[in-house]
Amino acid sequence: MSRSDEGMWLLNDPPESLLETRHGFKLTKEWINRARTASVRFNSGGSGAFVSARGLVITNHHVGADTLAKLSTKARDLLKDGFLAKSAADEMACPDLELNMLDGIEDVTGRVEEAVRAASDLAGQSSARRSVMAQIEKESLERTGMRSDVVTLYHGAVYHLYRYRRFTEVKLVFAPESSVAGFGGDVDNFEYPRHGLDFCLFRVYEKGAAYKPESFLRLHPEGPREGDLVFVTGHPGATQRLETVAKLQHRRDHLHPFSLAYLRMLEAALGQHASTGSDAARQAARELHSVANSRKAISGQYQGLLDARLMAVKVEEEQRLIGASNDNRPWESLASACRAHSQFHREHSLFERGFAFDSDLFVIARTIFRLVVENPKPDGDRLREYRDANRKSLELALYSPAPIHPSFEKARLSATLTWLAEVLGPSHPEVKRILDGKQPLRLASELVDGTRLADVQERRRLVSGGEDAIRSSADSMIRLVALVDPFARSMRKRFEDEVEEPERQSMARVAQARFKLYSRAVAPDATFTLRLAFGLVRPYEENGKNVPFQTTVAGLFSRHDQMAGKEPFHLPSSWLEARPRIHLETPLNFISTADTIGGNSGSPVLDRQGRLIGVNFDRNRPGLVRNFVYTDVGARHIAVHAGAIALALKEVYEAGALLGEMLD
Amino acid sequence: MSRSDEGMWLLNDPPESLLETRHGFKLTKEWINRARTASVRFNSGGSGAFVSARGLVITNHHVGADTLAKLSTKARDLLKDGFLAKSAADEMACPDLELNMLDGIEDVTGRVEEAVRAASDLAGQSSARRSVMAQIEKESLERTGMRSDVVTLYHGAVYHLYRYRRFTEVKLVFAPESSVAGFGGDVDNFEYPRHGLDFCLFRVYEKGAAYKPESFLRLHPEGPREGDLVFVTGHPGATQRLETVAKLQHRRDHLHPFSLAYLRMLEAALGQHASTGSDAARQAARELHSVANSRKAISGQYQGLLDARLMAVKVEEEQRLIGASNDNRPWESLASACRAHSQFHREHSLFERGFAFDSDLFVIARTIFRLVVENPKPDGDRLREYRDANRKSLELALYSPAPIHPSFEKARLSATLTWLAEVLGPSHPEVKRILDGKQPLRLASELVDGTRLADVQERRRLVSGGEDAIRSSADSMIRLVALVDPFARSMRKRFEDEVEEPERQSMARVAQARFKLYSRAVAPDATFTLRLAFGLVRPYEENGKNVPFQTTVAGLFSRHDQMAGKEPFHLPSSWLEARPRIHLETPLNFISTADTIGGNSGSPVLDRQGRLIGVNFDRNRPGLVRNFVYTDVGARHIAVHAGAIALALKEVYEAGALLGEMLD
Repeated sequence: MSRSDEGMWLLNDPPESLLETRHGFKLTKEWINRARTASVRFNSGGSGAFVSARGLVITNHHVGADTLAKLSTKARDLLKDGFLAKSAADEMACPDLELNMLDGIEDVTGRVEEAVRAASDLAGQSSARRSVMAQIEKESLERTGMRSDVVTLYHGAVYHLYRYRRFTEVKLVFAPESSVAGFGGDVDNFEYPRHGLDFCLFRVYEKGAAYKPESFLRLHPEGPREGDLVFVTGHPGATQRLETVAKLQHRRDHLHPFSLAYLRMLEAALGQHASTGSDAARQAARELHSVANSRKAISGQYQGLLDARLMAVKVEEEQRLIGASNDNRPWESLASACRAHSQFHREHSLFERGFAFDSDLFVIARTIFRLVVENPKPDGDRLREYRDANRKSLELALYSPAPIHPSFEKARLSATLTWLAEVLGPSHPEVKRILDGKQPLRLASELVDGTRLADVQERRRLVSGGEDAIRSSADSMIRLVALVDPFARSMRKRFEDEVEEPERQSMARVAQARFKLYSRAVAPDATFTLRLAFGLVRPYEENGKNVPFQTTVAGLFSRHDQMAGKEPFHLPSSWLEARPRIHLETPLNFISTADTIGGNSGSPVLDRQGRLIGVNFDRNRPGLVRNFVYTDVGARHIAVHAGAIALALKEVYEAGALLGEMLD
Repeated sequence: MSRSDEGMWLLNDPPESLLETRHGFKLTKEWINRARTASVRFNSGGSGAFVSARGLVITNHHVGADTLAKLSTKARDLLKDGFLAKSAADEMACPDLELNMLDGIEDVTGRVEEAVRAASDLAGQSSARRSVMAQIEKESLERTGMRSDVVTLYHGAVYHLYRYRRFTEVKLVFAPESSVAGFGGDVDNFEYPRHGLDFCLFRVYEKGAAYKPESFLRLHPEGPREGDLVFVTGHPGATQRLETVAKLQHRRDHLHPFSLAYLRMLEAALGQHASTGSDAARQAARELHSVANSRKAISGQYQGLLDARLMAVKVEEEQRLIGASNDNRPWESLASACRAHSQFHREHSLFERGFAFDSDLFVIARTIFRLVVENPKPDGDRLREYRDANRKSLELALYSPAPIHPSFEKARLSATLTWLAEVLGPSHPEVKRILDGKQPLRLASELVDGTRLADVQERRRLVSGGEDAIRSSADSMIRLVALVDPFARSMRKRFEDEVEEPERQSMARVAQARFKLYSRAVAPDATFTLRLAFGLVRPYEENGKNVPFQTTVAGLFSRHDQMAGKEPFHLPSSWLEARPRIHLETPLNFISTADTIGGNSGSPVLDRQGRLIGVNFDRNRPGLVRNFVYTDVGARHIAVHAGAIALALKEVYEAGALLGEMLD
């Protein structure tokens, strides 16, 4: 099943023979270990890499944007104006950024399966599975002191324990202006040819000193040539390639339409808030981009799911698997889990996943409420995110001093509370209890005005006060969480018992059928864990035209000219001023067939020698169906070229020292 | 039931005694006839008035925007740059604008009821009602040559025949730049204080000569003073104040959430298209504004429908009516019609109302297809819009030379076809037939590329070819319509028989109960026919602050400054240049308690003497619930002040002659 360059491969099970036969590349232990230890995960959702001996980390600007927004003030807009630390003293400490470096992987499948076998019914098995996973993580944490996550692979067939070194002393070093980093904005997003300088730089510290990473990738401004083999290491978030046809249809008929309606509603509300003034625009920018990005990605996936030819391929594959397994019960059980899910997926998303309460203050209130309720329980019985193994990361987020903007909170909360009523109707018992006959617009205002949780000290006070403090609190958000929590938890339990557990059990059997046919020559679906992908730097054809494998800085300026410099095609003055003196033929972005997905943002792109030749930041529109099926017909990931990074630092931003550190 | 200044009154049943007792105003026959004959309906959806002896007509810029877009070219953007005809020769002929002036009203209730009584079941009654209405219209058209519409009042209790003089020789005379006409854009829409110069001027011709209207309103730049009684004559589109509680709940639980999801989807798609370049932005501007406007209006209504206090008022009113009628069967029958409607309202909207096919080419194809099919039938048996009485208006629209933009058509059609799949699922038999396993994005492209209906001659050719030409046509849009039409018609019939007819019958009985309690002191709900409203120019309180009854030109400039001149708060150079030399204290917008709704856009605002003191263009946010219930607590309509119109013409646009004509 070696379909071209498909695969987001596990670092402990890399595609050695595939690389050797297809591309004549000998993947050594040294190569892969260096790639692993140089790769970094941004816990906020993204990838990156160490790029200097002094802990410099490169990622996408849009991965760093969350931090840039949090560090911005009315007086200093780091997103708009960019940032450069002239010296170490200028670097800005990030309030709540957590970076992870994968230290090691251990197969724990046997132990998980044994624990599950001991239970007799689905609810018991679901609980036993969660409990043993917690136990494994806790033991690992206690033994090693490292962040320890049990990862479910092949949707339940394989369980690996991932141990990470955890970095929270992170400082901002450099970011270009968002108008050039995200040049073309939502218009060009998922399009190619592309002209984005989508990178920024952080530095990891340890106890006040620049961190010396085990490995780092050296910048190679020359970049790749057409036809070159390249590698991408990063943390793809989620794919659904191994899912059954019934599950894809479930996504097509239920989950995707629901998500699209939600994202459009949120986009309209955020856009409306953003247009009320420049402060509001700054507050909303990051979430607006993220929502528009998701909306566009899911729209593309949805188009693919409506494509009868794509579905026919999936049906054919499935028939082959069912034939190999000689037993279609797992597929029937999966279809039945989908039917069950379709009955309550909206309530589950609205209440437990928080779709109805898009507000930082609500998230804080719920974290406090649940932390206080969960903490006294045995570790294995707690909701997953309140286990000891995750405590440090949770506290980093909960006690973040990042600013909270009341008017922005109100805009988001009123929009999502209104949508709650639209979706379930105001007569739904839970909706009725929440709205209490009030206009959602007014209710949202009262909720935001009635909470003191913007104050970090108040959060600490409530947590240390324990259940008594929570139960007696008159804080409006805490009261809302208390009102919502029983139903939200019931939805979560229903999901775990009726959907997740049967899925895991049946998917494990589907995976066995797949292993029987193809052994392990099929990579597991993405799980926001470190993976290795590879591919060729290749142009493609679109409507009979050749689309070149790279763009140049000259193309950036012509697009600016062609669009009359109107947002989102307005270059910052730094670039307009540099225009006459820089080498316009410098490559800006390039593409390859390597297999990436959301979460790979900021992933380093390496050449055969393991040098940093680019930073992945997007895929093109034909690549949107890659959630379900890999294709290299027109589908490409897109990277910032190392040469553009060097040019920008040296010629545009006068950051020669920084560049020197990366070339050193 | 004289709740304050509520009421959109019929011109043949004006509130004489109410005006006399509440405001000491004696409404004369002369006054009302002059107001009627000076008022004009824009068939594209809006109101206006004759304002000179030479056929000059004033309306809102946003009412004229449709025409401005159609007259614009790549080289000349009338929306962006505005327009002034320096002489009659410069005036631009409008491609498909139809204006109506109400000539007379005749009560035909008896004849309609008699015909309906003769039928025995609902389907027969529904068909008899449509048939007799067609007969009345046809007879009137043949007798008078005038446009003749039977209007359903009180949702079915009363039927009036409206006869209009019809004007289609209309030219554009003046329009300011849209950035000042719609200053504040969607951000300020439905907000107050407000700063919009939302007016433009057309001229009506008859056989090549400027039309001499029976009456016209003379501009009175002094405008109103605080506390003044003012009048609004115009064509409010639709209100739902007399609807039953069950119907309001039906709107809240089914219709509004569906409409909101639709509008958000369309807004996202239009916004995306608009951002791809300046041509695209121009193409999308008008529909984008209209969709955003509807979305905001319906959002406001929806907030009101979730308000338990508002609903309690409605329930109380209804109980009083049921008590007076001593028979709750009409209310039960109405609730049952709502339940029936909720079963198929989505299919009805998607297929028959065309939500699934947002494309000018589709509308043209369907008009041709149905015209050819309906034409051979007896007039009374045809679909309402294909009756002889409506033929001229239909042909004006069908053969309009207004340009059609293929990329814009594709953007809208692909978005709505995708949404069709989202809402009904791709397995719905009708959806399956339409999509045929294709990605909607690709299908929309094929449909637009495969039709020749952008060519007006091709439209004429197909119509004159009759059924043979249609059935054998390979035109992609005609084929789509042929595919869709049987189901669309079945939805229409189901709506007419299961919803509309029972509603009309029961609402007639509800109206009888209302007449019994209040006689005719309750105005009928709005029906896009001429109505008279009145109210006082009054400030209001919001969050404890006084909101003044008018804004000034100075306020316009300060808002521009405060928002740093960023879109949608960017004044055109004409105003920025005029700034030093104009009188900044000139009033710009003012408010009153008069009862208006969408469709009243462009309505003249008159003083006691019948002088034109302003042009209505919006209502504020507290006024959004007026669809369901009139309130003057904070709710106001908003008008452009006559003084600002005079200032703009004379000082900013050097159109002194035009102003002279209006003062003459």
